[in-house]
Amino acid sequence: MDTDVIVVGAGLAGLTAARRLSQAGRRVRVLEARDRVGGRTHTLRLPVTGVSVDVGGQWVGPNQPNIMALLGELGLETFPTHDQGQNLARLGGRMLRYRGLIPPLPVPVLADYALLERRFLALSRTIPPGAPWTAPGAAELDAQTFDTWITRHARTAQTRALMRLYAGAVFSADPAEMSLLHALTYTAHGGGINGHTLVRGHALQDRVLGGAQAIAQRLADGLEDVRLESPVSRVGQDDSGVTLHTPQGRHRAAHAILAVPPALWSGVAFEPPLPARRAQLQQRLPMGAVIKFMAVYERPFWRSAGLSGLAISDTGPVTVTFDNSPPQGTPGILLGFIEGGHARELMELDEEARRKAALDSLARLFGDQALRPLETVQRDWAAEAHSGGCYGALFGPGVWTGYGPALRESVGRLHWAGAETARIWMNYMDGAVESGERAAREVLDREG
Amino acid sequence: MDTDVIVVGAGLAGLTAARRLSQAGRRVRVLEARDRVGGRTHTLRLPVTGVSVDVGGQWVGPNQPNIMALLGELGLETFPTHDQGQNLARLGGRMLRYRGLIPPLPVPVLADYALLERRFLALSRTIPPGAPWTAPGAAELDAQTFDTWITRHARTAQTRALMRLYAGAVFSADPAEMSLLHALTYTAHGGGINGHTLVRGHALQDRVLGGAQAIAQRLADGLEDVRLESPVSRVGQDDSGVTLHTPQGRHRAAHAILAVPPALWSGVAFEPPLPARRAQLQQRLPMGAVIKFMAVYERPFWRSAGLSGLAISDTGPVTVTFDNSPPQGTPGILLGFIEGGHARELMELDEEARRKAALDSLARLFGDQALRPLETVQRDWAAEAHSGGCYGALFGPGVWTGYGPALRESVGRLHWAGAETARIWMNYMDGAVESGERAAREVLDREG
Repeated sequence: MDTDVIVVGAGLAGLTAARRLSQAGRRVRVLEARDRVGGRTHTLRLPVTGVSVDVGGQWVGPNQPNIMALLGELGLETFPTHDQGQNLARLGGRMLRYRGLIPPLPVPVLADYALLERRFLALSRTIPPGAPWTAPGAAELDAQTFDTWITRHARTAQTRALMRLYAGAVFSADPAEMSLLHALTYTAHGGGINGHTLVRGHALQDRVLGGAQAIAQRLADGLEDVRLESPVSRVGQDDSGVTLHTPQGRHRAAHAILAVPPALWSGVAFEPPLPARRAQLQQRLPMGAVIKFMAVYERPFWRSAGLSGLAISDTGPVTVTFDNSPPQGTPGILLGFIEGGHARELMELDEEARRKAALDSLARLFGDQALRPLETVQRDWAAEAHSGGCYGALFGPGVWTGYGPALRESVGRLHWAGAETARIWMNYMDGAVESGERAAREVLDREG
Repeated sequence: MDTDVIVVGAGLAGLTAARRLSQAGRRVRVLEARDRVGGRTHTLRLPVTGVSVDVGGQWVGPNQPNIMALLGELGLETFPTHDQGQNLARLGGRMLRYRGLIPPLPVPVLADYALLERRFLALSRTIPPGAPWTAPGAAELDAQTFDTWITRHARTAQTRALMRLYAGAVFSADPAEMSLLHALTYTAHGGGINGHTLVRGHALQDRVLGGAQAIAQRLADGLEDVRLESPVSRVGQDDSGVTLHTPQGRHRAAHAILAVPPALWSGVAFEPPLPARRAQLQQRLPMGAVIKFMAVYERPFWRSAGLSGLAISDTGPVTVTFDNSPPQGTPGILLGFIEGGHARELMELDEEARRKAALDSLARLFGDQALRPLETVQRDWAAEAHSGGCYGALFGPGVWTGYGPALRESVGRLHWAGAETARIWMNYMDGAVESGERAAREVLDREG
């Protein structure tokens, strides 16, 4: 044996698993396809202003126990997301300024939205954590799209628009692309719609000082054997161990933890072949589509206009924005998300055309000052071969009920980790950490 | 250059393309991962009775011009599918004997079915061949599942059951797993529901004498450079050509035709990376789930009972059967299809348990004589690493409208073929041949 356990993927899931196994006295080798650690977290230092920004995952909140505990353990600090001032909503061509979650829409719309949300949350509370396929009426919930449910139950165009914005912002997808059961599952255990979308007290409350990639970097610094630029092309196992192939050669261990998105395993040779249900599951978990765009300004000019920097828009391509300035507030940074169908349209454009489309979108919300940034940065995660998309996998209709049990079930000496396999906070940093802890325990339990 | 064109995949699509290029004077190398040609066609000689059976694709019909022309060109003969006698339908626990397509259900059910079919066909006629994303109202048709549409429009349980049987038999999937737009697209250009499901004059009219794999074998026999057990793990391209990597080494050519199912390209390294939309499309085309089961008897005992061997059942695991005996009628062979959710359940069982479940299913239709075959054979296509499932790819909600144009669009020197890329008869042998002809023309056109 070259080592005790091989971990594939140096994102948060893989590195958390590797740390736990290493702490338990096991020899661990981490194989990472990229030339960096961090997976879907990536902190970049921008060339003009020298400011560091997260072009990948960046938020944590007090309702996310796994990532919060890990940050404490690694001695990393957080700072609050800026949310002082009024939010903006651009809906049906009208601009609204407001505080809190819901824009000041006409009373019938607010009543309709409240009813729809209550109905959605009541349904979501019927989903057992980690096992949505066992929910009452799971087959029926899984046989329709989230869009079908919205269309059927929303009585106003504005309510439909708000729910579509929720889907885009939280799933990086259109509601047509996912099953209702998945929308309920994903929403359920993160404190409902508010838990996923609110800042204070919720999932967007804090950012990591120094950038979110520092988490992976610290985890990797504590490990002895992390190998970059080592993509795995074949995975074998026999009675005594596993054999993984990279361009650098064969790697042999007693167990392997596979901590990259499920979609990336289709087309990789497994010997013996994976069980049919697992193999087909991997074909059925496509990644979301999102372009993360940031524009850097000398100062956060929107703050002096009484704006928080948080905005939603039903036109796009940017549909959600945040004030993403560093703790000290300069330079000012506006963050815009381009999701689902909007992301697909912009994928076809070159970088300059995308930049223009995104800045125009920001200017419709924040005025012409938004058109004159010092610099911009954009990241199309669908174009990243080793992620395949962000934030994570989508479950289309029929997938949870047809294939759910295969998501976490080990295949002999192969154990699955990654944010997609989390019981709660799937596709978040918290879910990645939860899955890494679980996979490490799984290996230790099976050794006996 | 090692050769002019490399074709990946020695199924009908790849070999058709290779033949056309070779006929046009080009040097062609075919790289095939398996130790045989034929892809999703595979003819087996059974050990006990010595009879040859197709465990993969087997039917052709006069409404399929591409495969019929190729059979003629290769000098292969066909023989008619046996359909003399009465069909069986087991619906809601009742057994019905009938002739023709539709069982003698109560008149209100027949009226409901007729209305539903008319509505479905009228919608399907609005879909332009090869470009469903341009259909009127495409976004709305693509935002819901086929199941949603059936549930909304079928007024009787029996009609719903018949439509679910149609989905299972023709898509190897549950209607919950596909978008309504896909169900319409797939159905539209094969002559409607009848075109896909009827024997005489339609897609199931004939079988290939000697087995369907003979087509691939004859195509391969005419080629000089077909390399088996050569799975492609990396695909590179530059200004002057393509480089494909197999365990045997590097293969260099001016163009490549990639003729394996789209799902199998996820996780394979492309250099430069594929365009984001193409890469995400590949994550979104999972393969259907089907187990093909055959039981061989001394003689076709159902014929003497006045039965055709064609049966449908709403209980499963076998939901559709055919008389699959050889032309001379002995031995007698019953073919049972196990699809979608039924296939997923049986995937979890061992071969013996599956055999028992399938035979019990046949016995409920054809009596206890069905329990005593001379031998049986089964093929779970989802367990085949180099197919990933059968008959072909499913388009879930949002995929056609979000990613459709990327299905056939060449990426530089890489050209896509395979039954999934056909304009008409997707996932049929005819579609595979159509796609191979098209890809070959594409390469010849771009050479200039």
